[in-house]
Amino acid sequence: MSEYRTETDSMGPIRVPADRYYGAQTARSLTHFAIGADTMPRPVLRAFGTLKKAAALVNKALGLLAADKCDLIARAADEVISGHLDDHFPLRVWQTGSGTQTNMNVNEVISNRAITLAGGHMGSKKPVHPNDDVNMSQSSNDTFPTAMHIAAAEELVHQLVPSVTALRDTLAAKAHEFADVVKIGRTHLMDAVPLTLGQEFSGYVAQLDYGLAAVKATLPMVYELALGGTAVGTGLNAHPEFAVRVAEQVAELTGLPFVTAPNKFQALAGHEPLVFASGALKTLATSLMKIANDVRWLASGPRCGLGELTIPENEPGSSIMPGKVNPTQSEALTMVCVQVLANDVAVGLGASQGNFELNVFKPVIIHNFLHSVRLLTDACRSFREHCAADMPETDYEALEYGRGADSAMIEVDQSKIKPKAGGKVRKGIEANREQIAAYLNNSLMLVTALNRHIGYDAAAKIAKTAHHNGTTLREEAVQLAPPLKDGSGVLTAEKFDLIVRPEKMTGPGTES
Amino acid sequence: MSEYRTETDSMGPIRVPADRYYGAQTARSLTHFAIGADTMPRPVLRAFGTLKKAAALVNKALGLLAADKCDLIARAADEVISGHLDDHFPLRVWQTGSGTQTNMNVNEVISNRAITLAGGHMGSKKPVHPNDDVNMSQSSNDTFPTAMHIAAAEELVHQLVPSVTALRDTLAAKAHEFADVVKIGRTHLMDAVPLTLGQEFSGYVAQLDYGLAAVKATLPMVYELALGGTAVGTGLNAHPEFAVRVAEQVAELTGLPFVTAPNKFQALAGHEPLVFASGALKTLATSLMKIANDVRWLASGPRCGLGELTIPENEPGSSIMPGKVNPTQSEALTMVCVQVLANDVAVGLGASQGNFELNVFKPVIIHNFLHSVRLLTDACRSFREHCAADMPETDYEALEYGRGADSAMIEVDQSKIKPKAGGKVRKGIEANREQIAAYLNNSLMLVTALNRHIGYDAAAKIAKTAHHNGTTLREEAVQLAPPLKDGSGVLTAEKFDLIVRPEKMTGPGTES
Amino acid sequence: MSEYRTETDSMGPIRVPADRYYGAQTARSLTHFAIGADTMPRPVLRAFGTLKKAAALVNKALGLLAADKCDLIARAADEVISGHLDDHFPLRVWQTGSGTQTNMNVNEVISNRAITLAGGHMGSKKPVHPNDDVNMSQSSNDTFPTAMHIAAAEELVHQLVPSVTALRDTLAAKAHEFADVVKIGRTHLMDAVPLTLGQEFSGYVAQLDYGLAAVKATLPMVYELALGGTAVGTGLNAHPEFAVRVAEQVAELTGLPFVTAPNKFQALAGHEPLVFASGALKTLATSLMKIANDVRWLASGPRCGLGELTIPENEPGSSIMPGKVNPTQSEALTMVCVQVLANDVAVGLGASQGNFELNVFKPVIIHNFLHSVRLLTDACRSFREHCAADMPETDYEALEYGRGADSAMIEVDQSKIKPKAGGKVRKGIEANREQIAAYLNNSLMLVTALNRHIGYDAAAKIAKTAHHNGTTLREEAVQLAPPLKDGSGVLTAEKFDLIVRPEKMTGPGTES
Amino acid sequence: MSEYRTETDSMGPIRVPADRYYGAQTARSLTHFAIGADTMPRPVLRAFGTLKKAAALVNKALGLLAADKCDLIARAADEVISGHLDDHFPLRVWQTGSGTQTNMNVNEVISNRAITLAGGHMGSKKPVHPNDDVNMSQSSNDTFPTAMHIAAAEELVHQLVPSVTALRDTLAAKAHEFADVVKIGRTHLMDAVPLTLGQEFSGYVAQLDYGLAAVKATLPMVYELALGGTAVGTGLNAHPEFAVRVAEQVAELTGLPFVTAPNKFQALAGHEPLVFASGALKTLATSLMKIANDVRWLASGPRCGLGELTIPENEPGSSIMPGKVNPTQSEALTMVCVQVLANDVAVGLGASQGNFELNVFKPVIIHNFLHSVRLLTDACRSFREHCAADMPETDYEALEYGRGADSAMIEVDQSKIKPKAGGKVRKGIEANREQIAAYLNNSLMLVTALNRHIGYDAAAKIAKTAHHNGTTLREEAVQLAPPLKDGSGVLTAEKFDLIVRPEKMTGPGTES
Repeated sequence: MSEYRTETDSMGPIRVPADRYYGAQTARSLTHFAIGADTMPRPVLRAFGTLKKAAALVNKALGLLAADKCDLIARAADEVISGHLDDHFPLRVWQTGSGTQTNMNVNEVISNRAITLAGGHMGSKKPVHPNDDVNMSQSSNDTFPTAMHIAAAEELVHQLVPSVTALRDTLAAKAHEFADVVKIGRTHLMDAVPLTLGQEFSGYVAQLDYGLAAVKATLPMVYELALGGTAVGTGLNAHPEFAVRVAEQVAELTGLPFVTAPNKFQALAGHEPLVFASGALKTLATSLMKIANDVRWLASGPRCGLGELTIPENEPGSSIMPGKVNPTQSEALTMVCVQVLANDVAVGLGASQGNFELNVFKPVIIHNFLHSVRLLTDACRSFREHCAADMPETDYEALEYGRGADSAMIEVDQSKIKPKAGGKVRKGIEANREQIAAYLNNSLMLVTALNRHIGYDAAAKIAKTAHHNGTTLREEAVQLAPPLKDGSGVLTAEKFDLIVRPEKMTGPGTES
Repeated sequence: MSEYRTETDSMGPIRVPADRYYGAQTARSLTHFAIGADTMPRPVLRAFGTLKKAAALVNKALGLLAADKCDLIARAADEVISGHLDDHFPLRVWQTGSGTQTNMNVNEVISNRAITLAGGHMGSKKPVHPNDDVNMSQSSNDTFPTAMHIAAAEELVHQLVPSVTALRDTLAAKAHEFADVVKIGRTHLMDAVPLTLGQEFSGYVAQLDYGLAAVKATLPMVYELALGGTAVGTGLNAHPEFAVRVAEQVAELTGLPFVTAPNKFQALAGHEPLVFASGALKTLATSLMKIANDVRWLASGPRCGLGELTIPENEPGSSIMPGKVNPTQSEALTMVCVQVLANDVAVGLGASQGNFELNVFKPVIIHNFLHSVRLLTDACRSFREHCAADMPETDYEALEYGRGADSAMIEVDQSKIKPKAGGKVRKGIEANREQIAAYLNNSLMLVTALNRHIGYDAAAKIAKTAHHNGTTLREEAVQLAPPLKDGSGVLTAEKFDLIVRPEKMTGPGTES
Repeated sequence: MSEYRTETDSMGPIRVPADRYYGAQTARSLTHFAIGADTMPRPVLRAFGTLKKAAALVNKALGLLAADKCDLIARAADEVISGHLDDHFPLRVWQTGSGTQTNMNVNEVISNRAITLAGGHMGSKKPVHPNDDVNMSQSSNDTFPTAMHIAAAEELVHQLVPSVTALRDTLAAKAHEFADVVKIGRTHLMDAVPLTLGQEFSGYVAQLDYGLAAVKATLPMVYELALGGTAVGTGLNAHPEFAVRVAEQVAELTGLPFVTAPNKFQALAGHEPLVFASGALKTLATSLMKIANDVRWLASGPRCGLGELTIPENEPGSSIMPGKVNPTQSEALTMVCVQVLANDVAVGLGASQGNFELNVFKPVIIHNFLHSVRLLTDACRSFREHCAADMPETDYEALEYGRGADSAMIEVDQSKIKPKAGGKVRKGIEANREQIAAYLNNSLMLVTALNRHIGYDAAAKIAKTAHHNGTTLREEAVQLAPPLKDGSGVLTAEKFDLIVRPEKMTGPGTES
Repeated sequence: MSEYRTETDSMGPIRVPADRYYGAQTARSLTHFAIGADTMPRPVLRAFGTLKKAAALVNKALGLLAADKCDLIARAADEVISGHLDDHFPLRVWQTGSGTQTNMNVNEVISNRAITLAGGHMGSKKPVHPNDDVNMSQSSNDTFPTAMHIAAAEELVHQLVPSVTALRDTLAAKAHEFADVVKIGRTHLMDAVPLTLGQEFSGYVAQLDYGLAAVKATLPMVYELALGGTAVGTGLNAHPEFAVRVAEQVAELTGLPFVTAPNKFQALAGHEPLVFASGALKTLATSLMKIANDVRWLASGPRCGLGELTIPENEPGSSIMPGKVNPTQSEALTMVCVQVLANDVAVGLGASQGNFELNVFKPVIIHNFLHSVRLLTDACRSFREHCAADMPETDYEALEYGRGADSAMIEVDQSKIKPKAGGKVRKGIEANREQIAAYLNNSLMLVTALNRHIGYDAAAKIAKTAHHNGTTLREEAVQLAPPLKDGSGVLTAEKFDLIVRPEKMTGPGTES
């Protein structure tokens, strides 16, 4: 690159690229924190845009900021919110633990962008000063935790909950679809009494319902904002009404019920709300791990596994070996769950390390938190679309590509994937009813249904003989032909079929 | 030992001690699961007593169990609940993953104790059969998760919440006591603008309030019971009304609002409620880690640390070195927090590993969960009584000893510790007001208060000179004597004292 | 209890039980650290006995301690080492973070026991003073980390490694036993190309070999002892030769190659060796989790699972349902693995929290470390004896019981379990050769063997037809009867059997 | 984008960008695994380049691959190794758990690049076929774990070890520089007996030495490669000599002593070497956490903290408040340590979840492992350059910028940062000798030096009086003037100075 300008902070002049809105402190940080490749998550930047706009509006309303400055800040902040200025936020997660560099990055970008909008010179700090105007009534110490909460709440409400809910609804539809499929139960991985495949799937739905309820139970805390606490929580240098009003303003801008945190000392020095919310994410991860594992085990085979379910074949399996459909969506999802369990450790550990008026593990906390939210959101959607749900077939010959939002790579533009013209529905999870019935009929667990009719001893004898001979209960029952306790003769094939009805064993009651 | 009897299960006869109520399956398990020293937590046994009694009462009401058997079971179960039979539950946590051995241990003990109460012969299974009667309408698969939830809820509500609340209230009282103590703030461990010590403590209170709110937010899930699901969640072999009624009965027996779980397949195969509740415990641990760390740092010294707080000296420090009071309660508490963070990993990991109709990591989940609850409960009480709170002096010469409930050791009977006759109050955390004031007055951060009066440049010059010379702002201000911007002369010592008033800097507003 | 005596420390008099050797500081700690039920692990106490004896011997040799005092200390220390004085160490893990209370507990017990041996009065501190004599040249700050290392090394070398090695050898014997059992491979849980069951088991052996190598790679660090560093690592108040000589003495007493740590400042303030060694334990846990999971999955069924292995039935399964053998040893072992993964978090977290000259998370570190060692040791032994290995049948009617070493309970005395007279061998893991062969022959993966002989297209057609019809490759091959590429006619049943030989596919080479 | 071509796999045609070398399977994966933003780490891609080249060379040598094909593959692989083709690897970590998609991505890119080099048509699979030629003798199941080990070893040896060693050496130089600075020791955060600042820093050096030793102890395992195991570990479809020779070839290409893994079943299904190596990374993290915490605590202040160290001011602190230098490098480093501790959980958890012939958590394992390596490498370098070490001043006005390797952003080109012309050295960590001396002289711990000269009681009296009066020992000693035990008169100021010499207390011995 050859086009540069010089920006200045209290430590002196520094060169920055001419076409970047960021200033001296951001540039300085780029040299001091060249650690890893994790840039500050986009939702944090968007949240910063929101809070800077909200602060400007409130400062204007309180008579502290001129209307034209406020307007310029708001316009620049809107561009931060929309993502148009994403290329101007190069800083890493691994920086000052209060997120100071990112707060200054935002202040600098909004200032220079506002200056540009006003026709001024970048770096002049006129008419909009990064500290005096954009950061008015604020400190890194209260803006960063505020941005953490805004980002967390927005991602939970707008991304995670809809994605998990969609998967939950798909599984609920499958539970309905499979309501009549009676199958063998398995406990300790061993054959057990029967249930319906619909009941099994209803358990998955219930698991996700707990996770969704957990996430929602944590939101009230996450809606509480630190802004107004300034440097140490006392609110020094902020108007007494600032805290309450700026939270109201953020609520209005986002449509989410944000309020000011009741205690700002906690809000700067502790991160209980995000620890608790990360626990909710982990709760979801434990459920999804179980669901994804069940799906892949039930779809295992085609000949030497359980084979009760069929799942879509998305990638080429063996070209010669039909039916080898690797459960790749389950694998991606379970890996995501492992990551979420680990990220939760980082959140808790970071939150435990505060001292006095500040916790300086904020970036690592929000990085891990949002990483978990993003992965769960995407993986639930992927698992639903590419495994669980019935979906229209994709037109792979009409893919569009572009530079990715998350990486610099040319990749498929997910928003433009089209269904195949006249395309059929590609079924999602399907019940392999034949296999399921074969297991059920072959199982020895159904022998319990005979107890009342031929007595415990005769029933046990039938089961043991079948186990020994590798035959079915029905075969041995007919062979043994024990007398029926009601005196109506001996057990025949017809009577066996009348008595041993697994579908009667799938609900409460001692009738069977 | 020489007195034995023989008990029998389906695998044959086995010798058991004559004076133990447990039977063949427990004895067999003792030989097969000789792993570690962690016995099944007492609250789980108590919960089992409760659920066995509740099941008997409901089975009786449903006409399935004779009244005299029910009565015998209830009486024996009451002894399990009270702890009188604790010596009859020797099994380890590390057993079958559904807790089957412990369920059978309970069935056997209640059966044999009931038989004894009825004047029968132990091992005869008459008149109360361990499986047919005590385990009626139940399976290990639904009793154990039910016991997990009853135990968790009881310990949370009756142990943890009161203990944390007491510490929270003590810290709130200290916040009140310290409301007027203005001190230097510290962010990034560096001197910052002032706040009051009361404000600092109010942050601790707020932190614990979040933790308490978190625990309470998880309780509704924990109140949901698996009982009625039997072996795979369908409720096979249980009366259709059993699930709802037994939860009502447990609620009545415990005084806690237990209800039947809405989906029994989840209740056997997932453990979302306890994962989420463990996240609440971790939330508390992160707060307590921060609080305990702050206390020990603020009490560090006596000469070469921060020295803003004084804490009780509970143990001999250096016999020759006065003031060396090691922050031992902080150390015990932070170690507990580390354990709780780790236990939370075990809970989440265990909960993620279910398959099909059952999760077989139940004992490791509840072991870690209750371990965390117990440690947090005890450590908060210990930290409050022996560090934070003002307490009457202990009469160490009147200690009573006995065999411990938790170990076989002779140890101090905590319930009989007496205050010293005519004893004084031993103060808990105290403010070292002199030291706090010295820091505050010596600090350079107060220079910001001069800005409005002598201008930014003069103020900065004073601060820099004081920093360079190792003097106070006041000294250098008087030395420099800059002109006041209001034209009323130069900055004098008197004016300095009028302007630089830290107590004015501890709230919102830009006045200072 | 009614018999007491009074002991005194620098804080005054305190009542202790007359029959306990511990003194004032232990008693005081019992009142101040009534937290949880985790007492200091026995191996730490044994290690303390060893180090106190070693210190006395070296102090005597250096002319600092009278021979008779040394002798008394050594005799008392021997009783600590042997475990005879275990009832005199009631303190909890959750105490001062340097383990000071436990060091004092040891000093007091050895002092009073030595005094008793000398015919003196307990509490008189004559002729053996707990501080001046027993703790000579030492500090809690260097004795406790020394005891941590001695305990860790002894448990690793004498307990863990033999137990894991025994399991490894059992699995190696099984690998040998199963060398000729050709079976279907499974990747992604899906049918894959064949291998032998012996090869599969050889993988388990290799996994454990890595874990054993990992443990051994960490030992050199664990053999380094802090003793001689005294209070802050400088060795103040210890003879210049003390550090080297006491490590030599410990080595002589234990038979393990302990040496003095090269840097005592690290030895007091960091715990790198135990973090690294805990990582080795975790490595073992990941292997054992995989092995235990494989075993239970391969033994799943009896009708609706994989059913390739048979494992011993240790507990009553369903009385009516033959073949329902729950994989209880796998379940106990996988729960242990979960605990070890979690304990490792506690070790790492605790070790990261040192400050300046001391890490005060020592008890939580060693508690978790030894917990992991114990659980892995016992669980490997249990899994080997009760699941993997062929073992003589147990004589359950000859069980002996006694008060447990780890709990106060009456339980089975594991050291006196006898084989049944004329008892048969109870087989461990067995191959279900019929089921394995059925899978193999039914599999479609073997079609790859036909490629060279009939061409890719014909082979694929056979596989697809078999998949579609639910038939075997052999059936469809004969039905289709494609021409052989060598011109020798068409594919017949005989030729199929000559060509499709899974046992040829279990090694490298492209022949098949 | 508008330029596309069509590629085909066994599932049909699919559109890909004309200028990308990847083919159908990569494109398909882009649609199916749109999960998160974590792309496969660059070192894995480089390792894949190496192994594909090695495999081609060995296959050629074994007579299986034509020389011209081998040459084309090797040239294309070299471009993968060099990073020139990085833009052609857009796939995410969250994919099939065996890394199949990435293996195919590599196969496709090398094939198409080789085809291009040969003047052919992309997508034609001629003359170099992605499966038949590039993937010859390989499977995803053995290539991916091989790439994991190559990547891990290269990053450990070439990145991590040098970076940690450089920091270790800087700290060793500082230990030397501070060898004569006697300071107060601190245990339990409380004043303790003295040591030198050099000794304190020597502890840091020793801590890192353990971590480096730990990393090196794990390397032999990491050097073992899975290649040659093919699909299930048997080596089916690979030449019998392939495994050994390809490992030798990789060793030759990389200069690292890679060998073939002794057991391929483990190598595909277990990940013990990386779990153990991740434990070594965690060991380093615990050390670095302690070191970074010590540095920031010792540098805390400037007036109300400990203030014993001075660290470089890299960013603007308070513009008006001199001396407020936030310990930002410590904060970045401790956050990195938290992440490494959490990543270690993911590695262990993922490694524990293998089944049968394959572990399908490979991408999540290597992602976390390499994330830790990268963060530790960069953070140690950053901490060294910007905090610990004396470095030439940076010429901020000569910064060069460019598009980052890790993100798409315009950012500072770290490789072109220049020292300021005629620039001075910016000092790293410095001892604040005045403050250190003040603490030492003000401390009460030195009183122990008086014991031998005036007796314990007189010494204690002096200390207590000084503590009470807030004075120094010297002041009170002179005031009290106790008689000297050697009869030479009373304690005077001169005698005090002769006796109380902290520098005599910093080594072993009982002289002081």
